[in-house]
Amino acid sequence: MKKKYQVVGIGNALVDVLTHMDDDFLHEEGIGKGVMQLIDRERARDLYAKIGPAIEMSGGSAANTIAGVAKLGGTCAYVGKVCDDQLGEIFAHDLRAQGAVYETAPAPDGGEHETGRCVVIVTPDGERSMNTYLGVTEHLSPADIDEEMMRDAEWIYLEGYRFDGPDSHEAFARAIRAAKGAGGKVAITLSDPFCIDRHREAFARMIREDVDLLFCNRAEMISMYQTVDLEAALARAAAEVEIVACTDSENGAHILAHGQRWHVPAVPTDIVDATGAGDLFAGAFLWGITNGHDLETSGRMGCIAASEVISHLGARPEADLKERFASHGLSA
Amino acid sequence: MKKKYQVVGIGNALVDVLTHMDDDFLHEEGIGKGVMQLIDRERARDLYAKIGPAIEMSGGSAANTIAGVAKLGGTCAYVGKVCDDQLGEIFAHDLRAQGAVYETAPAPDGGEHETGRCVVIVTPDGERSMNTYLGVTEHLSPADIDEEMMRDAEWIYLEGYRFDGPDSHEAFARAIRAAKGAGGKVAITLSDPFCIDRHREAFARMIREDVDLLFCNRAEMISMYQTVDLEAALARAAAEVEIVACTDSENGAHILAHGQRWHVPAVPTDIVDATGAGDLFAGAFLWGITNGHDLETSGRMGCIAASEVISHLGARPEADLKERFASHGLSA
Repeated sequence: MKKKYQVVGIGNALVDVLTHMDDDFLHEEGIGKGVMQLIDRERARDLYAKIGPAIEMSGGSAANTIAGVAKLGGTCAYVGKVCDDQLGEIFAHDLRAQGAVYETAPAPDGGEHETGRCVVIVTPDGERSMNTYLGVTEHLSPADIDEEMMRDAEWIYLEGYRFDGPDSHEAFARAIRAAKGAGGKVAITLSDPFCIDRHREAFARMIREDVDLLFCNRAEMISMYQTVDLEAALARAAAEVEIVACTDSENGAHILAHGQRWHVPAVPTDIVDATGAGDLFAGAFLWGITNGHDLETSGRMGCIAASEVISHLGARPEADLKERFASHGLSA
Repeated sequence: MKKKYQVVGIGNALVDVLTHMDDDFLHEEGIGKGVMQLIDRERARDLYAKIGPAIEMSGGSAANTIAGVAKLGGTCAYVGKVCDDQLGEIFAHDLRAQGAVYETAPAPDGGEHETGRCVVIVTPDGERSMNTYLGVTEHLSPADIDEEMMRDAEWIYLEGYRFDGPDSHEAFARAIRAAKGAGGKVAITLSDPFCIDRHREAFARMIREDVDLLFCNRAEMISMYQTVDLEAALARAAAEVEIVACTDSENGAHILAHGQRWHVPAVPTDIVDATGAGDLFAGAFLWGITNGHDLETSGRMGCIAASEVISHLGARPEADLKERFASHGLSA
């Protein structure tokens, strides 16, 4: 099945605003550590006024994944909404400069919403606490889904965070119909435990009916299946989808498929900023399986890519990932 | 002389767009290595389309210096023009969040110009080659100079790059009159050899008539006095201004004042990105002398601060500079 794109991602198009603050600040501001919380425009302004100097880098979970596929030389595209403003220009530039196709029409500047942004507060332990003002990216509509692009995808990759938008479920449904109708496959990432809480039924239905590959981490898996027993949750997931890839921080990743199971070890590194670890795991894993690598090898590639991205500030890869694979004995 | 501000800087307000490219790219694009060149809006768009993924960080030479003074806990303010757009908001936020006063009225959004930006291309050796689209910051006018703020300054710090704007000489003259009239002193940085070429007479006159403290590096000193003999240039400068502080890369800095001369060694570090070295030298030096430290100690502080800023990407300090001073035996 050779198609134009190995992976097409759909997600929230965000520019990350990264700053270093201490744990006291999180406490004072009531910010949940290590998770993503949605904030409105007013809170975004208030929070921005309180944080220290920051740097801006393109982000967005699925966009980071697609940037990873592109960095590896994979053919890929991204769908996500920005405004025709300076942050939107930055987002579009960085994705295209990495080699991904990005054609979603920007919303006009000067309207009700701006390009979305995520204030990422990095604490001294490298953990990241995310405060997302979705802005215009919340309003991705079914009309933004290019069905031809979906038909051209070996895999579409759906970002769980996108369940929050008003038309997002419908947009996903359109993408899934087009992709599956042309023999494509569907991957989803659960994104965040609290996002699952907000949309558990919709996630469950999509997993049962449409998903071929489920990405998540331990906390998300536990939230999804409402059990503290990871093993029980993994078993339930594996009964519903063809492939489960569950990352587990320093324990690496668990991959379940076709009645088999693999454990892939994490690649130790000094954590500078945990942002993007799961995104890059997914990017390298998808690149691996669409390049004919087996699931275990693809999982190892995922862990190597995750390790690279957490060793520096920012959620997109900087080093040559294929070189990293080679240094771990994996021929890419 | 205890005033409201230890230092007030006037400069080009820019957001840096940093990217890693190799030397071949510089060659293909005709970009002069290690220097600043001005580009127009069209070229800025063209160049941006050609570079890889980038990150955005507030920059601007004098603004970096003021950020350094603020990071050290000094009282300081900055004057420089941005637009009321997203990049302008980023610039203003980062300076205020660092503790500097920044009150220059932004130009309205949607006009002819946007907030200025500097595409900084960092090559593998850590050298930075700067391509500046000045945008609205070129149009800082005498009306933007708050005379009361200038009177409140122990030192005003003038960025040589600002000689390029149409009203900039007049704006500088207004600032100098106000500051000197209230017993304040005037520091200038020569900024760049090619900027000196464009405005040598204006620089020379200002140095002769108004400047108390001249900051420059070796290349700028040589350009200013049109001699390849650094010693001869230093002697000429020292005859014209009270204090000369000339940085000299890995050779540290030469400080000349009142017929005396000091050599301050550089602080060795791995160079990640040379952007901001001179800016931070000036910031720490000014903080030093306005806190009662002697010229040699202030010069050592300058070299320590420069060493910090070149050890990471970006032109503003990240580490606790006072701790760095202490680790070198300097009590701040």
